[in-house]
Amino acid sequence: MHAITIPEPGGPEALVWAEVPDPVPGEGEVLVEVVAGAVNRADLLQRQGFYDPPPGSSPYPGLECAGRIAALGPGVSGWSVGDEVCALLTGGGYAERVVVPVGQLLPVPEGVDLATAAALPEVTCTVWSNVFMIAHLRPGETLLVHGGASGIGTMAIQLAKAVGARVAVTAGSPEKLARCAELGADVLIDYREQDFVEEVRKATDGTGADVILDIMGAKYLERNVQALAVNGRLVIIGLQGGVKGELNLGALMAKRAAVMGTTLRSRPLQEKAAIVAAVREHVWPLIGAGTVRPVVDRTVPMPEAAEAHRALESGSPVGKVLLLTPGT
Amino acid sequence: MHAITIPEPGGPEALVWAEVPDPVPGEGEVLVEVVAGAVNRADLLQRQGFYDPPPGSSPYPGLECAGRIAALGPGVSGWSVGDEVCALLTGGGYAERVVVPVGQLLPVPEGVDLATAAALPEVTCTVWSNVFMIAHLRPGETLLVHGGASGIGTMAIQLAKAVGARVAVTAGSPEKLARCAELGADVLIDYREQDFVEEVRKATDGTGADVILDIMGAKYLERNVQALAVNGRLVIIGLQGGVKGELNLGALMAKRAAVMGTTLRSRPLQEKAAIVAAVREHVWPLIGAGTVRPVVDRTVPMPEAAEAHRALESGSPVGKVLLLTPGT
Repeated sequence: MHAITIPEPGGPEALVWAEVPDPVPGEGEVLVEVVAGAVNRADLLQRQGFYDPPPGSSPYPGLECAGRIAALGPGVSGWSVGDEVCALLTGGGYAERVVVPVGQLLPVPEGVDLATAAALPEVTCTVWSNVFMIAHLRPGETLLVHGGASGIGTMAIQLAKAVGARVAVTAGSPEKLARCAELGADVLIDYREQDFVEEVRKATDGTGADVILDIMGAKYLERNVQALAVNGRLVIIGLQGGVKGELNLGALMAKRAAVMGTTLRSRPLQEKAAIVAAVREHVWPLIGAGTVRPVVDRTVPMPEAAEAHRALESGSPVGKVLLLTPGT
Repeated sequence: MHAITIPEPGGPEALVWAEVPDPVPGEGEVLVEVVAGAVNRADLLQRQGFYDPPPGSSPYPGLECAGRIAALGPGVSGWSVGDEVCALLTGGGYAERVVVPVGQLLPVPEGVDLATAAALPEVTCTVWSNVFMIAHLRPGETLLVHGGASGIGTMAIQLAKAVGARVAVTAGSPEKLARCAELGADVLIDYREQDFVEEVRKATDGTGADVILDIMGAKYLERNVQALAVNGRLVIIGLQGGVKGELNLGALMAKRAAVMGTTLRSRPLQEKAAIVAAVREHVWPLIGAGTVRPVVDRTVPMPEAAEAHRALESGSPVGKVLLLTPGT
């Protein structure tokens, strides 16, 4: 088969479409014929050599895909060859075929075409696990989402609104904020022009955000704690603004607040399977009903993945960038 | 009545036993004739002028007491004049009488004498709310308690052991560690001689502590995160080592860990009542059965509260220091 390989870490040009051996499904795994993969920021780090795949996983980038089951490994039940699926991956989504543990498979939701389903696994699993399973966002509470127009952001807005929460978002342009508003965001903050702490306070009668979903890390740590409400939960899932930041523990105590950091990729199989099962139970019906939709910015042929990486690095996409496997 | 007043913030000598007006119980409150109060580190901060009582609470120090109900305010049911009780307070425990919201009253547990019961409310409510209600310590997990010989520490050891957890403690002398061992601590770490990160790793086959109950704040922040296990929860309830510390968010994410800060005093009435109810349900039976015991270092006459503060400042007590009301 072909896959995007990274012979030498580097810029987007480091991504090379090359012939590689086919993967073979092991116990409890299926082989998926990939129709589309999707790009995540973690792939950019992997390409640069900063985020190696966990031991035992595919060396190729790609944390999600959609396609058809081509073969079943030993001990697999409940799935058949030919089933249309999408999947959460530990790697290998930028390829014509990929091996997937069955606990990470999802059916294609009703009303979503097969390739577009590749836009769903990472954002639904990330948002559901962090905002709901870890931070327990409740109806009537306020969620602040940094990067509201990103893949994660566009899904976080929709899911939070679907459960009856209020949503504030930050983004870097009026155009992006308009798209967030279309998805349901209540409070729109242009981080280039406005102070998000101030704007969140104004929008919440001074109380602050109950949950913050953050991708900036150190750069926003102090202000995120300032923007939290009493009993607030700050969940950090990205470090685009640095790794080490000063935490004011007095402020944290006064608010009885929590700072959590998580990653999805490094979780053990059974935790991933539990998240995927929860997403199938809680999120898939909302997608089937049309309440929550995949947001796709553009599609790019998989061999030209470099172009997709450049698009993410420019910060311009709203929602996900898909990679279409040639000939599918 | 008499109470310990603080005419001018300062050293232990700032505590002055003086005649003050009697408090009057309002709606949903009772008046308690205090037999004993107990000393908490927060009282030392209040004496120094660094921790003012929340609005509406007694101006006198003292976050817990034991005594007899002397009068009922309007709308109180379920309690009678003469009942022997102990209570969680927002202030006013260093006094002959104090007004208590009924949600913060507890009966004196079976087998505990009335004055000794003053040693229980703060430590049981603090440990139960933080270690169990917030950090969800589970049987088989490892709890690291900093200051294992303190009032909080001696209760944390006993409660964690009672639910089937493993307990590591730090303390500043072999004598204190021996007392922790008597209470059930499994791993004894002399912080003056040993590196607690190293010792916790050794004692857990390299995995780390699932929950850490911390009173040092900034000074231990980096090492506490290092000592956490995957999915670990660091709960900070004191800032004896400073307020602002550097947090490595990459380490937090890699461990999918959480840093929480809380205080008990500033919580609204209904949250305190929920904690007190949980303590009565889960902790009181363990005390009644003798599985968990109050640990009292010494008793001091209440007018000599300065002596008790000096004792805490010297760091020498094991367990609680009680203040006995004169003539009771």
